Amino acid sequence: MARPTPLSGFPEWLPAGRIVEQHVLDTLRRTFELNGFAGIETRAVEPLSELLRKGETSKEVYVLRRLQAEADEAAAVDDSSLGLHFDLTVPFARYVLENAGQLSFPFRRYQIQKVWRGERPQEGRFREFYQADIDVVGAGELPFHVEVELPLVMAEALAALPIPPVRILVNNRKVAEGFYRGIGLEDVDAVLRSIDKLDKVGPGVAADFLQQEAGASAEQARACLALAGISGSDARIAEAVTRLAREFGATSELLETGLAELVALVEAAAAVTPGVLVADLRIARGLDYYTGSVYETVLVGHESLGSICSGGRYDELATDGANTYPGVGLSIGVSRLVSRLLSVGLVRATRSVPSAVVVAVTSEESRTDSERVAAALRGRGVPVEVAPSAAKFGRQIRFADRRGVPFVWFPATAERTQPDGTVVAATGHEVKDIRTGEQVAAELATWVPPASDLWPRVVSSGADSVE
Amino acid sequence: MARPTPLSGFPEWLPAGRIVEQHVLDTLRRTFELNGFAGIETRAVEPLSELLRKGETSKEVYVLRRLQAEADEAAAVDDSSLGLHFDLTVPFARYVLENAGQLSFPFRRYQIQKVWRGERPQEGRFREFYQADIDVVGAGELPFHVEVELPLVMAEALAALPIPPVRILVNNRKVAEGFYRGIGLEDVDAVLRSIDKLDKVGPGVAADFLQQEAGASAEQARACLALAGISGSDARIAEAVTRLAREFGATSELLETGLAELVALVEAAAAVTPGVLVADLRIARGLDYYTGSVYETVLVGHESLGSICSGGRYDELATDGANTYPGVGLSIGVSRLVSRLLSVGLVRATRSVPSAVVVAVTSEESRTDSERVAAALRGRGVPVEVAPSAAKFGRQIRFADRRGVPFVWFPATAERTQPDGTVVAATGHEVKDIRTGEQVAAELATWVPPASDLWPRVVSSGADSVE
Repeated sequence: MARPTPLSGFPEWLPAGRIVEQHVLDTLRRTFELNGFAGIETRAVEPLSELLRKGETSKEVYVLRRLQAEADEAAAVDDSSLGLHFDLTVPFARYVLENAGQLSFPFRRYQIQKVWRGERPQEGRFREFYQADIDVVGAGELPFHVEVELPLVMAEALAALPIPPVRILVNNRKVAEGFYRGIGLEDVDAVLRSIDKLDKVGPGVAADFLQQEAGASAEQARACLALAGISGSDARIAEAVTRLAREFGATSELLETGLAELVALVEAAAAVTPGVLVADLRIARGLDYYTGSVYETVLVGHESLGSICSGGRYDELATDGANTYPGVGLSIGVSRLVSRLLSVGLVRATRSVPSAVVVAVTSEESRTDSERVAAALRGRGVPVEVAPSAAKFGRQIRFADRRGVPFVWFPATAERTQPDGTVVAATGHEVKDIRTGEQVAAELATWVPPASDLWPRVVSSGADSVE
Repeated sequence: MARPTPLSGFPEWLPAGRIVEQHVLDTLRRTFELNGFAGIETRAVEPLSELLRKGETSKEVYVLRRLQAEADEAAAVDDSSLGLHFDLTVPFARYVLENAGQLSFPFRRYQIQKVWRGERPQEGRFREFYQADIDVVGAGELPFHVEVELPLVMAEALAALPIPPVRILVNNRKVAEGFYRGIGLEDVDAVLRSIDKLDKVGPGVAADFLQQEAGASAEQARACLALAGISGSDARIAEAVTRLAREFGATSELLETGLAELVALVEAAAAVTPGVLVADLRIARGLDYYTGSVYETVLVGHESLGSICSGGRYDELATDGANTYPGVGLSIGVSRLVSRLLSVGLVRATRSVPSAVVVAVTSEESRTDSERVAAALRGRGVPVEVAPSAAKFGRQIRFADRRGVPFVWFPATAERTQPDGTVVAATGHEVKDIRTGEQVAAELATWVPPASDLWPRVVSSGADSVE
């Protein structure tokens, strides 16, 4: 076969890149678990009927068929057909309903898995990528304070990553809905979809969208854009929105409730981590299941990347008729973030293999001695591999160097007599730091590498270490 | 919507089961990394042309189509169609060819991912499951000692799991091929497929298979079954096979090479971990790409589960014409193993949530005080959650108890005057072990739970702890 080429939209990393991705995933997981979130995984597939309950993303589903399916089975795509999940929220809602009797509520879960979107091949978007989600769902009710807590957990998780600082932009669906209805726009979803495009298309085109797709007058469009222009991190945003609402005769109880929640959110967040959460009335989130706070997150200095972590409060996503499970959730688009970190060279791994030590092999006959050295080091938690061949030591050192492994271990040898009768004296264990060339005697029972060399680390490029 | 039901073949665990699975995955990963294997992940899909290069599993592929594909695109299933990978070996071979210029050989990699098999729905087999693979591939050549090393790495990984001891059964494809050709059977793959079924169908039916599908005479079938009956862990297996081969006039250089390798393998393994590796000439492995050692692994006392870890040496799997990358690999079927551990109750998690502590909330007004306690504990690496509501303390304790969280923290309170004028004295921080009921004063700056309570542990059911 010819050398294969990458498939557009399906990213894969070389080992050093994978170390960066794994570091990001491990760090997120640790923060989520420290905050009491239980990890679950759901199957990769859902029935199409589940995936298509919310219309917006229906275009992007991959449907499965068994290669050896009967002809009639292969041709049919119906509700019971299986599709790959395009996010982790829909499967999570299904999981909660399926297992409600065996879960303890409020149920706090994190979920880190790949998702798939059946984008057209030429669009150049990711068709497979990691998402890392946290959600808290209640049985029947869920207090507002969860809407404060969850973005702060994400802020903590993102702050633990080797990335620039983040800013979490928040809005409240009740503010948007209250205001739009107040000025006479009933198709709230259409307004939200137009506002959601504001950053991409600018206010002029957004105003056109509002008029063409949400049935707004020029005046109503102007009101929507004015609302979208408001941002801040204290009670003054409520004053600004209320002034605007009065100007357009749009005050309502829903709007007031939303403003109270929005101010409570940014003020509570500012008390814990000042400057991270900012109210921004431009944040719309296209998904129609949000009912309260909504969140988007930008990397400061890399705003063009778009939101790396989004979510919100939902009340009707998981319901089986008898019971409803309201929730708050946020989702990090991990692959896009890692891809950016790697492509602009923001971070790198200090080496591309786990091994801190290569144990040299003096001769194939004594390979077992080298294996014993390796086992002793591993027993103390040192990642190690044995040289693949008993080549000249210079070649074995170059082998380690090529992999970025910092140390080569030379096992002790017994006194031996060469074929020509020469006696070669016994030697003790020695270890060489191949970066400095320094080679010293080492105790097999106690030697460990410096902590900073034990495992590959993920560091800011250029910087010495970011952990 | 109605309450959803599980999809046959797509296992999902409740949070406590996922803790067991995650523990297994973490433990495997750690052992692999300690042995110098670099982690990679490959995309979930491969072109059908890749997946169908080896015929055996072609029946089990899930093919993807975009839901919104044009009609002609949706109908066509051709070589460029994408299918979900059914193992990690084929994608790994492709990854090596695609990235050969950027990898350092011998390339040691582990890969832990889900795979999919498009089984007929009624067959009740797993259609989605985790595999955990290690492989070492060389560029052009790969020394024999890798065939000794890899099953020992797997033995180390499996010994670190909370499972019964394993036995790794090994054979050598050169022995089988040398013997079969020596007695005049040229369709070696057909013979292997028949012998592979021996455990399931018994010698009588296997002899029928050999005659019907491999074109064997009754005498040749008898010879194959006699070979399959040989097992042992030292040089005597070579003597037994050689005797049998002489009886049937089947000696050959290939057979001798294979026997020398097989004996070298079991003897080298016995020197490191006695009793774990056993030569068993019944082991066939259906896959036609193996060329040297082949491995299967049984859980002692649970042999009916079949092989939980299999693999072998291959020489032609990854080749782009100009270069060939021979390898040795083994793969653990993690989901089947975890499923068995959970269903027969061999292991359990000590709790189903990460939290070691629930911080009580005295009143909604003082929730921030509880959040500060939680942040302080998390800062010292203690997983913690804050109670969802400021209910009576008895209810908050029952909330923690229901989740299996061992400790409840009661935050210090300032002196306060109640509406009726009563003065309530200030209190210090206290922490209650809800298993013993003991409640003691605690220092926020220093308190940590006992190490055995810090994280959920995976223990043998009934036993106190297996780590």
